[in-house]
Amino acid sequence: MPDMPVMPDFSKGDGLLPAVAQDAVTSEVLMLAFMNAEAFAETLAGGRAVYYSRSRGRLWRKGEESGHYQEVQQVLVDCDGDSIVLKVRQQGEAACHTGRRSCFFNEITPDGARIISEPIIDPAKLYGKKHD
Amino acid sequence: MPDMPVMPDFSKGDGLLPAVAQDAVTSEVLMLAFMNAEAFAETLAGGRAVYYSRSRGRLWRKGEESGHYQEVQQVLVDCDGDSIVLKVRQQGEAACHTGRRSCFFNEITPDGARIISEPIIDPAKLYGKKHD
Repeated sequence: MPDMPVMPDFSKGDGLLPAVAQDAVTSEVLMLAFMNAEAFAETLAGGRAVYYSRSRGRLWRKGEESGHYQEVQQVLVDCDGDSIVLKVRQQGEAACHTGRRSCFFNEITPDGARIISEPIIDPAKLYGKKHD
Repeated sequence: MPDMPVMPDFSKGDGLLPAVAQDAVTSEVLMLAFMNAEAFAETLAGGRAVYYSRSRGRLWRKGEESGHYQEVQQVLVDCDGDSIVLKVRQQGEAACHTGRRSCFFNEITPDGARIISEPIIDPAKLYGKKHD
Protein backbone atom coordinates (compact mmCIF):
# COMPACT_ATOMS: atom_id res chain seq x y z
CA MET A 1 0.00 0.00 0.00
CA PRO A 2 1.51 3.35 -0.93
CA ASP A 3 1.95 5.94 1.78
CA MET A 4 -0.47 8.83 1.82
CA PRO A 5 0.91 12.35 2.18
CA VAL A 6 0.46 13.93 5.59
CA MET A 7 -1.07 17.34 6.26
CA PRO A 8 -0.36 19.31 9.45
CA ASP A 9 -2.66 18.33 12.29
CA PHE A 10 -3.45 21.39 14.36
CA SER A 11 -5.50 19.33 16.77
CA LYS A 12 -2.12 18.40 18.26
CA GLY A 13 -0.01 20.60 20.53
CA ASP A 14 -2.91 22.77 21.69
CA GLY A 15 -3.28 24.02 18.13
CA LEU A 16 0.32 25.23 17.84
CA LEU A 17 2.94 23.33 15.86
CA PRO A 18 6.67 24.09 15.82
CA ALA A 19 7.92 25.50 12.52
CA VAL A 20 11.58 25.60 11.53
CA ALA A 21 12.70 28.28 9.08
CA GLN A 22 15.61 26.97 7.03
CA ASP A 23 17.56 28.99 4.47
CA ALA A 24 16.50 27.71 1.06
CA VAL A 25 20.00 28.12 -0.36
CA THR A 26 22.44 27.35 2.46
CA SER A 27 20.15 25.05 4.51
CA GLU A 28 21.14 26.93 7.66
CA VAL A 29 18.45 26.73 10.34
CA LEU A 30 17.49 30.36 10.90
CA MET A 31 14.86 30.21 13.62
CA LEU A 32 12.10 28.18 15.19
CA ALA A 33 8.65 29.54 15.95
CA PHE A 34 5.10 28.25 16.20
CA MET A 35 2.18 28.26 13.81
CA ASN A 36 -1.53 27.85 14.35
CA ALA A 37 -3.86 26.81 11.54
CA GLU A 38 -4.50 30.40 10.53
CA ALA A 39 -0.79 31.23 10.33
CA PHE A 40 -0.17 28.10 8.25
CA ALA A 41 -3.01 28.90 5.84
CA GLU A 42 -1.84 32.49 5.40
CA THR A 43 1.76 31.35 4.83
CA LEU A 44 0.64 28.90 2.18
CA ALA A 45 -1.63 31.39 0.44
CA GLY A 46 0.64 34.43 0.66
CA GLY A 47 4.10 32.96 0.23
CA ARG A 48 5.53 34.81 3.23
CA ALA A 49 6.13 33.20 6.62
CA VAL A 50 3.45 33.94 9.20
CA TYR A 51 3.82 32.54 12.72
CA TYR A 52 1.76 32.67 15.88
CA SER A 53 3.42 34.67 18.63
CA ARG A 54 2.78 32.96 21.94
CA SER A 55 3.98 36.01 23.89
CA ARG A 56 1.74 38.42 22.02
CA GLY A 57 -1.14 36.02 21.51
CA ARG A 58 -1.63 36.93 17.87
CA LEU A 59 -0.40 36.22 14.36
CA TRP A 60 3.15 37.36 13.76
CA ARG A 61 3.87 38.27 10.18
CA LYS A 62 7.65 37.93 10.22
CA GLY A 63 9.08 41.22 8.93
CA GLU A 64 5.95 43.23 9.65
CA GLU A 65 8.02 45.88 11.45
CA SER A 66 11.42 45.52 9.81
CA GLY A 67 10.30 44.79 6.27
CA HIS A 68 12.54 41.73 6.41
CA TYR A 69 10.08 39.11 5.27
CA GLN A 70 10.74 35.44 4.74
CA GLU A 71 9.81 34.47 1.20
CA VAL A 72 8.70 30.85 1.42
CA GLN A 73 10.06 28.52 -1.26
CA GLN A 74 8.78 25.23 0.12
CA VAL A 75 6.58 24.00 2.97
CA LEU A 76 7.31 20.57 4.46
CA VAL A 77 5.43 18.60 7.10
CA ASP A 78 6.78 15.63 9.02
CA CYS A 79 5.59 12.03 9.23
CA ASP A 80 3.32 12.68 12.19
CA GLY A 81 1.87 15.94 10.92
CA ASP A 82 3.02 17.78 14.00
CA SER A 83 6.11 19.71 12.84
CA ILE A 84 6.74 22.06 9.92
CA VAL A 85 9.82 23.12 7.94
CA LEU A 86 9.78 26.25 5.79
CA LYS A 87 12.49 26.67 3.17
CA VAL A 88 12.83 30.45 3.00
CA ARG A 89 14.75 33.30 1.53
CA GLN A 90 15.33 35.74 4.36
CA GLN A 91 14.99 39.34 3.22
CA GLY A 92 17.60 41.62 4.84
CA GLU A 93 19.86 38.66 5.65
CA ALA A 94 19.26 38.59 9.42
CA ALA A 95 16.49 36.35 10.74
CA CYS A 96 17.34 37.02 14.40
CA HIS A 97 16.24 40.05 16.39
CA THR A 98 19.87 40.36 17.56
CA GLY A 99 20.89 41.14 13.98
CA ARG A 100 22.41 37.73 13.34
CA ARG A 101 21.61 35.55 10.36
CA SER A 102 20.40 32.73 12.59
CA CYS A 103 18.87 32.70 16.05
CA PHE A 104 20.97 29.61 16.85
CA PHE A 105 24.19 31.37 17.79
CA ASN A 106 24.81 29.78 21.20
CA GLU A 107 26.90 26.63 21.26
CA ILE A 108 26.51 24.50 24.37
CA THR A 109 29.18 22.03 25.44
CA PRO A 110 29.76 20.19 28.71
CA ASP A 111 32.09 23.09 29.57
CA GLY A 112 29.44 25.80 29.13
CA ALA A 113 28.03 28.12 26.48
CA ARG A 114 29.67 30.39 23.95
CA ILE A 115 28.50 32.68 21.15
CA ILE A 116 29.58 31.44 17.73
CA SER A 117 28.31 34.19 15.40
CA GLU A 118 28.13 37.95 15.45
CA PRO A 119 25.45 40.40 14.29
CA ILE A 120 25.57 41.34 10.62
CA ILE A 121 23.16 44.25 11.03
CA ASP A 122 22.44 46.67 13.88
CA PRO A 123 19.10 45.60 15.33
CA ALA A 124 18.61 49.02 16.94
CA LYS A 125 18.14 50.48 13.48
CA LEU A 126 15.43 48.03 12.57
CA TYR A 127 13.15 47.25 15.42
CA GLY A 128 10.88 49.04 17.79
CA LYS A 129 10.27 45.82 19.67
CA LYS A 130 12.34 42.86 20.71
CA HIS A 131 11.09 40.76 17.82
CA ASP A 132 9.76 41.96 14.52
CA MET B 1 28.20 45.60 26.20
CA PRO B 2 28.98 42.21 24.75
CA ASP B 3 26.17 39.68 24.48
CA MET B 4 26.15 36.85 26.96
CA PRO B 5 25.67 33.32 25.67
CA VAL B 6 22.23 31.81 26.27
CA MET B 7 21.54 28.46 27.91
CA PRO B 8 18.31 26.54 27.33
CA ASP B 9 15.55 27.63 29.70
CA PHE B 10 13.45 24.63 30.64
CA SER B 11 11.14 26.78 32.72
CA LYS B 12 9.57 27.68 29.37
CA GLY B 13 7.17 25.49 27.40
CA ASP B 14 6.07 23.39 30.37
CA GLY B 15 9.62 22.07 30.64
CA LEU B 16 9.77 20.79 27.07
CA LEU B 17 11.69 22.60 24.35
CA PRO B 18 11.59 21.75 20.63
CA ALA B 19 14.82 20.24 19.31
CA VAL B 20 15.69 20.04 15.61
CA ALA B 21 18.05 17.29 14.47
CA GLN B 22 20.02 18.48 11.47
CA ASP B 23 22.46 16.37 9.48
CA ALA B 24 25.94 17.61 10.42
CA VAL B 25 27.24 17.09 6.88
CA THR B 26 24.35 17.87 4.50
CA SER B 27 22.43 20.27 6.82
CA GLU B 28 19.21 18.44 5.97
CA VAL B 29 16.63 18.74 8.73
CA LEU B 30 16.02 15.15 9.79
CA MET B 31 13.39 15.41 12.51
CA LEU B 32 11.97 17.53 15.27
CA ALA B 33 11.28 16.25 18.78
CA PHE B 34 11.18 17.64 22.31
CA MET B 35 13.67 17.64 25.15
CA ASN B 36 13.27 18.13 28.86
CA ALA B 37 16.17 19.16 31.09
CA GLU B 38 17.13 15.56 31.75
CA ALA B 39 17.18 14.65 28.04
CA PHE B 40 19.30 17.72 27.31
CA ALA B 41 21.78 16.93 30.07
CA GLU B 42 22.12 13.31 28.96
CA THR B 43 22.59 14.36 25.33
CA LEU B 44 25.34 16.78 26.30
CA ALA B 45 27.09 14.30 28.57
CA GLY B 46 26.73 11.21 26.38
CA GLY B 47 27.07 12.60 22.87
CA ARG B 48 23.99 10.78 21.57
CA ALA B 49 20.61 12.45 21.06
CA VAL B 50 18.11 11.83 23.84
CA TYR B 51 14.62 13.28 23.56
CA TYR B 52 11.51 13.27 25.71
CA SER B 53 8.66 11.31 24.19
CA ARG B 54 5.41 13.10 24.90
CA SER B 55 3.37 10.07 23.83
CA ARG B 56 5.26 7.67 26.07
CA GLY B 57 5.91 10.12 28.88
CA ARG B 58 9.55 9.15 29.27
CA LEU B 59 13.04 9.73 27.93
CA TRP B 60 13.50 8.52 24.36
CA ARG B 61 17.04 7.51 23.56
CA LYS B 62 16.87 7.75 19.78
CA GLY B 63 18.03 4.42 18.37
CA GLU B 64 17.38 2.49 21.58
CA GLU B 65 15.45 -0.15 19.62
CA SER B 66 16.97 0.09 16.16
CA GLY B 67 20.56 0.77 17.14
CA HIS B 68 20.42 3.77 14.84
CA TYR B 69 21.69 6.42 17.20
CA GLN B 70 22.29 10.06 16.44
CA GLU B 71 25.87 10.98 17.23
CA VAL B 72 25.76 14.63 18.27
CA GLN B 73 28.45 16.86 16.78
CA GLN B 74 27.18 20.23 18.03
CA VAL B 75 24.43 21.55 20.30
CA LEU B 76 23.01 25.00 19.55
CA VAL B 77 20.46 27.08 21.45
CA ASP B 78 18.58 30.07 20.12
CA CYS B 79 18.48 33.69 21.23
CA ASP B 80 15.56 33.15 23.61
CA GLY B 81 16.83 29.89 25.08
CA ASP B 82 13.68 28.08 24.08
CA SER B 83 14.70 26.07 21.00
CA ILE B 84 17.53 23.65 20.32
CA VAL B 85 19.39 22.48 17.21
CA LEU B 86 21.46 19.31 17.23
CA LYS B 87 23.98 18.77 14.46
CA VAL B 88 24.06 14.99 14.20
CA ARG B 89 25.41 12.03 12.29
CA GLN B 90 22.51 9.66 11.85
CA GLN B 91 23.57 6.05 12.24
CA GLY B 92 21.83 3.75 9.74
CA GLU B 93 21.01 6.68 7.44
CA ALA B 94 17.26 6.84 8.15
CA ALA B 95 16.08 9.17 10.92
CA CYS B 96 12.39 8.57 10.21
CA HIS B 97 10.37 5.60 11.45
CA THR B 98 9.07 5.25 7.87
CA GLY B 99 12.60 4.36 6.74
CA ARG B 100 13.26 7.74 5.13
CA ARG B 101 16.32 9.86 5.78
CA SER B 102 14.19 12.75 6.99
CA CYS B 103 10.78 12.89 8.63
CA PHE B 104 9.97 15.95 6.50
CA PHE B 105 8.88 14.15 3.36
CA ASN B 106 5.49 15.78 2.80
CA GLU B 107 5.43 18.90 0.66
CA ILE B 108 2.37 21.11 1.10
CA THR B 109 1.26 23.56 -1.59
CA PRO B 110 -1.99 25.45 -2.09
CA ASP B 111 -2.98 22.52 -4.33
CA GLY B 112 -2.50 19.86 -1.65
CA ALA B 113 0.14 17.50 -0.27
CA ARG B 114 2.57 15.14 -1.93
CA ILE B 115 5.35 12.83 -0.83
CA ILE B 116 8.77 13.95 -2.03
CA SER B 117 11.08 11.19 -0.79
CA GLU B 118 10.96 7.42 -0.52
CA PRO B 119 12.15 5.02 2.17
CA ILE B 120 15.80 3.98 1.97
CA ILE B 121 15.40 1.12 4.45
CA ASP B 122 12.52 -1.19 5.31
CA PRO B 123 11.21 -0.03 8.68
CA ALA B 124 9.52 -3.38 9.29
CA LYS B 125 12.96 -4.93 9.69
CA LEU B 126 14.03 -2.45 12.32
CA TYR B 127 11.28 -1.56 14.66
CA GLY B 128 8.94 -3.26 17.03
CA LYS B 129 7.17 0.03 17.63
CA LYS B 130 6.12 2.95 15.56
CA HIS B 131 9.12 5.02 16.64
CA ASP B 132 12.42 3.76 17.88
